[in-house]
Amino acid sequence: MPDFIGDMEIERSCGKPLYMQLYEQLKYMIKDGKLQPGHKLPPIRELAGMLGVNSVTVVKAYKRLEADGMIFSKTGSGTYVSCDIAITSMHEYTVPSADVIDFASFTPSPQLFPVEHFKALINEVLDRDGGMAFEYQDGRGYQPLRAALAEYAAAVDIEAHQDDIQVISGAQQGIDILSKALLDFGDTIVMESPSYTGAIAAFRSRNVRIAEVPMNEDGLDIKVLEKRIREDNPHLIYVMTDFHNPTGVSYSLHKRKQLLNIARRYDILIIEDDYLSELNFSENKQPLLKSMDDDQRVIYIKSFSKILMPGLRLGFMILPRRDDIYHRVLDAKHASDISTSGLMQRVLELYLSRGLWYEHMNIIYGEYKRRYEHMLQALDRYMPKQIKYHVPAGGLHIWLLLPEGCCDRELYGYAVNAGVIFAPGAAFYPRTDKSRCLKISFASTDEEQIDIGIKRLSRAITAYLNDKYKKNNDRYAPLL
Amino acid sequence: MPDFIGDMEIERSCGKPLYMQLYEQLKYMIKDGKLQPGHKLPPIRELAGMLGVNSVTVVKAYKRLEADGMIFSKTGSGTYVSCDIAITSMHEYTVPSADVIDFASFTPSPQLFPVEHFKALINEVLDRDGGMAFEYQDGRGYQPLRAALAEYAAAVDIEAHQDDIQVISGAQQGIDILSKALLDFGDTIVMESPSYTGAIAAFRSRNVRIAEVPMNEDGLDIKVLEKRIREDNPHLIYVMTDFHNPTGVSYSLHKRKQLLNIARRYDILIIEDDYLSELNFSENKQPLLKSMDDDQRVIYIKSFSKILMPGLRLGFMILPRRDDIYHRVLDAKHASDISTSGLMQRVLELYLSRGLWYEHMNIIYGEYKRRYEHMLQALDRYMPKQIKYHVPAGGLHIWLLLPEGCCDRELYGYAVNAGVIFAPGAAFYPRTDKSRCLKISFASTDEEQIDIGIKRLSRAITAYLNDKYKKNNDRYAPLL
Repeated sequence: MPDFIGDMEIERSCGKPLYMQLYEQLKYMIKDGKLQPGHKLPPIRELAGMLGVNSVTVVKAYKRLEADGMIFSKTGSGTYVSCDIAITSMHEYTVPSADVIDFASFTPSPQLFPVEHFKALINEVLDRDGGMAFEYQDGRGYQPLRAALAEYAAAVDIEAHQDDIQVISGAQQGIDILSKALLDFGDTIVMESPSYTGAIAAFRSRNVRIAEVPMNEDGLDIKVLEKRIREDNPHLIYVMTDFHNPTGVSYSLHKRKQLLNIARRYDILIIEDDYLSELNFSENKQPLLKSMDDDQRVIYIKSFSKILMPGLRLGFMILPRRDDIYHRVLDAKHASDISTSGLMQRVLELYLSRGLWYEHMNIIYGEYKRRYEHMLQALDRYMPKQIKYHVPAGGLHIWLLLPEGCCDRELYGYAVNAGVIFAPGAAFYPRTDKSRCLKISFASTDEEQIDIGIKRLSRAITAYLNDKYKKNNDRYAPLL
Repeated sequence: MPDFIGDMEIERSCGKPLYMQLYEQLKYMIKDGKLQPGHKLPPIRELAGMLGVNSVTVVKAYKRLEADGMIFSKTGSGTYVSCDIAITSMHEYTVPSADVIDFASFTPSPQLFPVEHFKALINEVLDRDGGMAFEYQDGRGYQPLRAALAEYAAAVDIEAHQDDIQVISGAQQGIDILSKALLDFGDTIVMESPSYTGAIAAFRSRNVRIAEVPMNEDGLDIKVLEKRIREDNPHLIYVMTDFHNPTGVSYSLHKRKQLLNIARRYDILIIEDDYLSELNFSENKQPLLKSMDDDQRVIYIKSFSKILMPGLRLGFMILPRRDDIYHRVLDAKHASDISTSGLMQRVLELYLSRGLWYEHMNIIYGEYKRRYEHMLQALDRYMPKQIKYHVPAGGLHIWLLLPEGCCDRELYGYAVNAGVIFAPGAAFYPRTDKSRCLKISFASTDEEQIDIGIKRLSRAITAYLNDKYKKNNDRYAPLL
């Protein structure tokens, strides 16, 4: 009897239809990751027997799960947990089992986190500040941290005063706060297409219109941008100018200047999401938009989630020197979570002001550069030639393009079977549920795993392409 | 020359009008707390002389600050930083100077925080989990913590499974997430009037209509509630059933049941914000709404900010067992900050499961009970008889009512002069900018300070009432 059956409780006396109980419990197990994508479910009669219910009960539950896209059947093979789960609920993503190579995770390996330094600094702060470290901080952020961040900004050629800085509980909160502060119902925001799933979610939750502008090899398509601006009159443009997530594209200097000019001409604010500009492994390094922001219209968001760890829940924004923005952002911060953890702000202040950040950056840079080069070599060596990709100037991921007619979701099942997972491209588009792209990240895989993973992915793609072209895609049939 | 003059920089060459520069810099200083409410500003000519600008420049800057409500003048006395600042920007509240008694702060004394326990547990978690403590956690919360919280809930008679629990980065985030998950543009929310400022801000930022229902001595006014429901068709009711913030009212058992019945009848969800039910100092203890929630329509929000410290940025919600709510809340959590600090979740899990919470609760309970009794005695002894207040069953504050015709803002200046501050009542109403109520909290004042503070406040009130009735309110005149 499969393990998960033991966890199921079907109660005849509770008034809820049995098939609904079964449906809900299976659904939770899939969402929880107890039943992983690709897991084969028991045949209908067998499960009915194990649970002591009628076959019709199981049929109805399976049908409903299929309608939700949570399971699918292969003719003559059985019923499986769907691979789409990873697409429709990325944030419920659970760690795959140990033998699966995880190119989907975009979170740094926890082994790289400087635990000992942080531990020492936490103890130092607690000894120094006691319970005060747990009081509410100034809504803008702990003042000594803002001073240290202004210095940090100067090192990347951004001129900022500590009062221009808004501390945030991670970059995601920064995007959420800006959407609250700057966007109203019915407003339009311009986004690159594809773009970061978290940004799409934050803007969507604000009920605004998303105007998509496709990405070219040197940044977003300026012609389409101008068309969208004229048609939709947006207030705000959200961009990632270095190793854009997910395409890996870095903006050329020319395009950066064009973007700033257009923003000036049409009086639009730009959000520059800098999640990782430090990890540039090429000779081609361009200035941040914010460093060229002569007329105060770039809002810079800095994440520490990739260089340090996402669990710090700490980042910062540099705001344009405009009173209206300053107060709207502060109000939105307050309505969101009042203030960011004082303890972590105090620890980060020491971490930065003692230069530990730069020490750590050097280690991280070296480690990820090795992985980056290793993945590019492995792709070159093993990947079928039909697969196209752009070599990014840096960052932690590569964006692969399948041949026309292919679908990321279809490939996902093959990849799971081969023991490797990736982030399907569809998740990065606000308006589509399939794409022919996939994002593979080496954030949490070492060199050996990269090798194994790229080999497995290459095999999966080959098998998928073979099936796709040879078998004319007739292997998926409705469940019943 | 006053201190703050040294911080000012007026630049003739920068193109911005001099009066605007002066206006903006004074505004920042007031917002920053460098210039505290009640601070007397230099006379016009004197300031002009010190800065080397024309008197007209200072007049224009002062006029503009007055129009913003940031400064005011007393005839024959001078120009002062306004007391309204504390009302319009509570979240920019800065700690007053040491000799002022602070009844405005609703944050526990940091001395009460169990620093040594937390320090030991942080070290234990870092030794055990290393960098994993800084990874993203499950969006719902770290599973062992959710299990511990389910046990915690059982201790207050709430039956909850760990999967009903959503961990949040503080109660304010809980309210923000619910407003995202459950309210759309144009929807109506019912709130008690007055209510918690942070909740008002979160719902406002969602652009929803707020239907206010006045508070009686045993909870909100049921007749008005039904009227609002019929007229405005709300989806959601937000309440604090124990020591309501700010009135201090606790709902009677009868009213709790009435509220649940009405929610059932009209199919409305209830948010029960339990920020402090532990601190009941009376014999009159009523069950939480969530413990009587037989048909899954109460969302329970639990804050740890008052019993432990707000800087933990950690709380939890218990959701109704309804799939739609579960997923909408999880999506909103993800869009807000992805997940709550893993380190603090792991630490709190140990803190709860080792029983340290209950040990600490006993200490806190005893300390605050002493302060509570002390404040009631001091009020009884020193407060002018015209001041009315309701004795709360517990909590950390008392709500005072001034006689008809009085105004919290007017009193504020007197209080600052007497060396005591309070939270003006107007901040707790969504649609008014003055009230005749004030909230005084003993969260961060010890018994000695309570004595001094209540004496000072009583003197300030007496002086205010004397001026008010004797001088017929003619002492405030326009600035110029």
